[in-house]
Amino acid sequence: MTITLTKPPLSADALMAAAIRVLSVDMVEAANSGHPGAPLGMAEMATALWGAGGAGFLRHNPANPKWPDRDRFVLSNGHASPLIYSLLHLTGYDLTPGDLSRFRQMHSRTPGHPEVDVTPGVETTTGPLGQGLANAVGMALAEKLLAAEFNRPGFDVVDHHTYVFLGDGCLMEGISHEACSLAGTLKLGKLVCLWDDNGISIDGPVDGWFTDDTPGRFEAYGWQVIRAVDGHDVTAVRAALAEAKADADRPTLICCRTQIGRGAPTKAGSHKVHGAPLGAEEVSAMRTALGWRHAPFTVPDEIMDTTDARPHGARSEAEWRIRMEAYREAYPAQAAALDRRMKGDLASDWPQVVDEIMETAAARTGSIATRKASAQVLEQLCLRVPEMFGGSADLTGSNLTDWPGAESVNETGAGRYLSYGVREFALAAIMNGMALHGGFIPFGGTFLTFSDYSRNAIRMAALMKRRVVHVLTHDSIGLGEDGPTHQPVEHAASLRLIPNLAVWRPCDAVETAAAWCAAVETADGPTALLLSRQGLPCQGRDADQVQMIRRGGYVLAAAEGAPTAVVIATGSEVALALAARKTLGAAGRHVAVVSMPCRERFLAQDRAYRDSVLPPGVPRLAVEAGHPESWWRLVGPEGDVVGMETFGESAPAGELFAHFGFTPEAVAERLGRLVGL
Amino acid sequence: MTITLTKPPLSADALMAAAIRVLSVDMVEAANSGHPGAPLGMAEMATALWGAGGAGFLRHNPANPKWPDRDRFVLSNGHASPLIYSLLHLTGYDLTPGDLSRFRQMHSRTPGHPEVDVTPGVETTTGPLGQGLANAVGMALAEKLLAAEFNRPGFDVVDHHTYVFLGDGCLMEGISHEACSLAGTLKLGKLVCLWDDNGISIDGPVDGWFTDDTPGRFEAYGWQVIRAVDGHDVTAVRAALAEAKADADRPTLICCRTQIGRGAPTKAGSHKVHGAPLGAEEVSAMRTALGWRHAPFTVPDEIMDTTDARPHGARSEAEWRIRMEAYREAYPAQAAALDRRMKGDLASDWPQVVDEIMETAAARTGSIATRKASAQVLEQLCLRVPEMFGGSADLTGSNLTDWPGAESVNETGAGRYLSYGVREFALAAIMNGMALHGGFIPFGGTFLTFSDYSRNAIRMAALMKRRVVHVLTHDSIGLGEDGPTHQPVEHAASLRLIPNLAVWRPCDAVETAAAWCAAVETADGPTALLLSRQGLPCQGRDADQVQMIRRGGYVLAAAEGAPTAVVIATGSEVALALAARKTLGAAGRHVAVVSMPCRERFLAQDRAYRDSVLPPGVPRLAVEAGHPESWWRLVGPEGDVVGMETFGESAPAGELFAHFGFTPEAVAERLGRLVGL
Repeated sequence: MTITLTKPPLSADALMAAAIRVLSVDMVEAANSGHPGAPLGMAEMATALWGAGGAGFLRHNPANPKWPDRDRFVLSNGHASPLIYSLLHLTGYDLTPGDLSRFRQMHSRTPGHPEVDVTPGVETTTGPLGQGLANAVGMALAEKLLAAEFNRPGFDVVDHHTYVFLGDGCLMEGISHEACSLAGTLKLGKLVCLWDDNGISIDGPVDGWFTDDTPGRFEAYGWQVIRAVDGHDVTAVRAALAEAKADADRPTLICCRTQIGRGAPTKAGSHKVHGAPLGAEEVSAMRTALGWRHAPFTVPDEIMDTTDARPHGARSEAEWRIRMEAYREAYPAQAAALDRRMKGDLASDWPQVVDEIMETAAARTGSIATRKASAQVLEQLCLRVPEMFGGSADLTGSNLTDWPGAESVNETGAGRYLSYGVREFALAAIMNGMALHGGFIPFGGTFLTFSDYSRNAIRMAALMKRRVVHVLTHDSIGLGEDGPTHQPVEHAASLRLIPNLAVWRPCDAVETAAAWCAAVETADGPTALLLSRQGLPCQGRDADQVQMIRRGGYVLAAAEGAPTAVVIATGSEVALALAARKTLGAAGRHVAVVSMPCRERFLAQDRAYRDSVLPPGVPRLAVEAGHPESWWRLVGPEGDVVGMETFGESAPAGELFAHFGFTPEAVAERLGRLVGL
Repeated sequence: MTITLTKPPLSADALMAAAIRVLSVDMVEAANSGHPGAPLGMAEMATALWGAGGAGFLRHNPANPKWPDRDRFVLSNGHASPLIYSLLHLTGYDLTPGDLSRFRQMHSRTPGHPEVDVTPGVETTTGPLGQGLANAVGMALAEKLLAAEFNRPGFDVVDHHTYVFLGDGCLMEGISHEACSLAGTLKLGKLVCLWDDNGISIDGPVDGWFTDDTPGRFEAYGWQVIRAVDGHDVTAVRAALAEAKADADRPTLICCRTQIGRGAPTKAGSHKVHGAPLGAEEVSAMRTALGWRHAPFTVPDEIMDTTDARPHGARSEAEWRIRMEAYREAYPAQAAALDRRMKGDLASDWPQVVDEIMETAAARTGSIATRKASAQVLEQLCLRVPEMFGGSADLTGSNLTDWPGAESVNETGAGRYLSYGVREFALAAIMNGMALHGGFIPFGGTFLTFSDYSRNAIRMAALMKRRVVHVLTHDSIGLGEDGPTHQPVEHAASLRLIPNLAVWRPCDAVETAAAWCAAVETADGPTALLLSRQGLPCQGRDADQVQMIRRGGYVLAAAEGAPTAVVIATGSEVALALAARKTLGAAGRHVAVVSMPCRERFLAQDRAYRDSVLPPGVPRLAVEAGHPESWWRLVGPEGDVVGMETFGESAPAGELFAHFGFTPEAVAERLGRLVGL
């Protein structure tokens, strides 16, 4: 196979850009679906960052996508996925022409939007706009924190950059404000963002809806902004990248003027090239214009030789390994801790930590809000588990997510606690980025109601199977006077619907401790802890019962004889269920109370266990101060649910519980009705 | 009662500010709950805007809070609610000392956060930060659009400003970026925002997490920014307000430097004054310092005389009414239309419009995506209903929310269609603001999955009982190749949990038309229309069946004899249910198919109707390409649900439906199992 060169002969850079363009459009054509415009427009930006056989800016080793000290690359405008697949193929990742040809096909390694763990070299799943950028802020933060914690003079064992490609869409999204504002404050100097400034979004030229002076905006955030770079001039982009790296104190935005769909002979520059295949004719004309004679998904060796980043990557990683081994010799404990944390393993003393936490919780008596019980757990957990990284969206004193001695993150990267500001969405997406980077178990708080603001990032953690813990306090009308804007009603039920999200609503200190331990052990998914503002009585349990908390639901108070009914309750309503049990007992009815802090865990138990907790045929009542939807599945149409399907009110908590029917008397009455009393 | 004046005697402004301070802290003390810091800090800003007996800047008539041409005031930092309650009382709204004394009590008119329709003079419900500001953008947009549509030379019958108080929290929230960026582009010159720049948020002094050059940021949005105003100098704030009003082309941000908790002798300036009562001692000291000797909730007449805005307000409104009557004479049709639209009434020909829409839909045959059926409805609806105002978060070509001849909004305020840009949250909150302002029925589109981004604003529309229509297309894995980031799974079930939100998932053109008509008629709440990307077959119905669509669920295909089973389905799965019915019919089982486009409407029907649709005792299977949670309540534990509880995949839609079990065969098999075949 020969390459027909135009005159003058194409440079290696131009060949790489051409290869990116052709591979990208061929993927979209083969799938008859996808977004060619952005990959075409960013081909030179990508060449500048990824090109020159790995001797360029991106420090990575395609042979080992998990090398801990690699640079991170995030394609925040994830619809440009053919771009990253092209780059991964061209630079030598395990992504074959066959993989490329199966773009957007079932179970292929080249899905419609980039997905972490599906494609080697993809660092985060992107597509929901703005979130990749916020993930990258989390990655850069993780790097800075780890560097501050582990590096020693002469041993920069953590020292890498995070690069982001992003489009106008990411910049319009509110989360870009939240994340970039915080990145400026935190002086994340190793974060380098390249804006694909093509002036087009799906509805057309953006001047009708996006007229920001974006450079000015980012300067207002304290970023270095490199303006007016020709995004189709590889040399100019390289110069900008060098300038970006030279500023260690500020994150950098490189503004790359580009033309969307560049290289598509008739469609370039229009929004029509954004989200639909170019068509055979246009692709053919593009091939001709580029002088590209090769079949789809075929890149000649001469070009692959120049784009393959493996040789250089292997050297980079080898250099790092030598440094790391020297570090290991000098600082063996630190090296072992860094290895362990980057792998996501818990320390070997974890079982003891659990024992201590559970013992402390069990020793509690009286009444304690589960948010305070959580704070008690954190005091132990954060002392013993250094990878715990806390924060709150400006509700630290309410969420109680800090702990004695928690040091706030400062500009140098010291500290393990971050006041994220009033930025719920960024908090969640930044935590996702930290979990993706590795080295931390991030947790962060807001009010349960405001999980609405961060909901899609919680979903993304679940989709990406990453360990992130959301501390969602003020979990019902029990928060009282702040009123319906702040009172969750549908939120517990709604969060339970997100696949792979563990939702815990513990009833007391022991369940809170068990929930926290489960969250830390759940390495393959996020957890939401729904915690009360108000005090909840500590319940007695035997050792078996304590063990069974982890099963998500268990008999907290058995019926005193063959059960007439079972009451299922969570959180603050467990005490109501116990009181109703007592009332019914006095009337000669035997009622069992099941505490079900994590419905999804319970549903995942085997049939025998589930039947032992909820004996078939025995009428069931569920009680939860929220939307009843979660419970119909378990109580059936013969059963009943004490819940609420309206918004709350502003009043003291006690009055609200009475008003909405969450009292021992009201629950006993409903239970009585259920058993024919 | 006498006033003890300090020397020199307090000015009227100072007295008003003092009254605001004392009333505010007394409210918080009485409730033993609330946020004194912000009302104290904004007392002079409020005096500048609201003061001088109504001769100041705010043009309003406390005797008629519904005067259509009043200025709008939005307290975006809604936790400062005592401030607005104080102002409403002082300026003569129907809010008594008794109301103030019942701050944060059950069913009082002074709830914890301001709630529209609860307190006269409150224009929108605020508390979830950033959204009030975005509502205000919607109000200012509505004003500008109505002015462009209705005003005639010499007849400025729509001519008012929208004023916003906001805090650091609002500015940190992402939605502030989305909304303010768009406000700049749209040149909403009558939007005036006053930033309470006190440098404190709940976690403490903001320099650890919020270091934006906010003036620079807003200049980047194209706003007029008035920097460094002393927020405790009423005269300085008034001068800034005058400057703001003088610029008709740009929205204005007035940066008011303030001290949080100003006037609290020992606690001012600290985050400790943000969210807790000051305590009796501090309040007493504050009274002394202010020379305020009056009992709680008592403002002497001498002061009330200076703050009462009713006389001036009555004159302002009377002037407008004279202008309006002259306009009515000159432009009777326009005046009638403006009246009608501001009242939120539909035109008298609405029943005919419905008939035409339903007839057109009924005439359809073959297969059509419900998003396209929706576009067909919009073509008729927007022609006949001038208050329809459309838009999309940069997915116009996908959501199909525009219509032939739809003119995009331009800087002059002409146009009825807005490309909101990639700003889902702002889209929803701006639509809320338009609905609150009156004159429009806003509708806007995004992908169903990205309702996650706007979720809390959808909730706020439901809480505020406002008519807003969300067009949420690409409603299942049926969107295909874009993959799991874009495929809703839990979203239909999750939206159904929001109280007072109507969720429709129509199965064909006729149900889509019925859903749209219901949405337009639902004046007291928002609607979400969940629409398919892919084609869905048009179903046959008799006139009764068409009528019954409005009941949310109805028998689309009766069993051919005593029913063996009922299949409940929505949207794209109705066709599957019908196919399974046929298969089972061939096996001698009589199956009825119930189409249930709006579960909440169905659940609100009387028992007799519900039993007629779902005969008790007959086994039920529900089918929906999403999380099954919505259906357990209706099918019971003896029933079954064909749904999915995992994330989707990237592949062509047909393959995905097969993979996840949504085929006629798979549904027939599950149905067969249910009836013991």
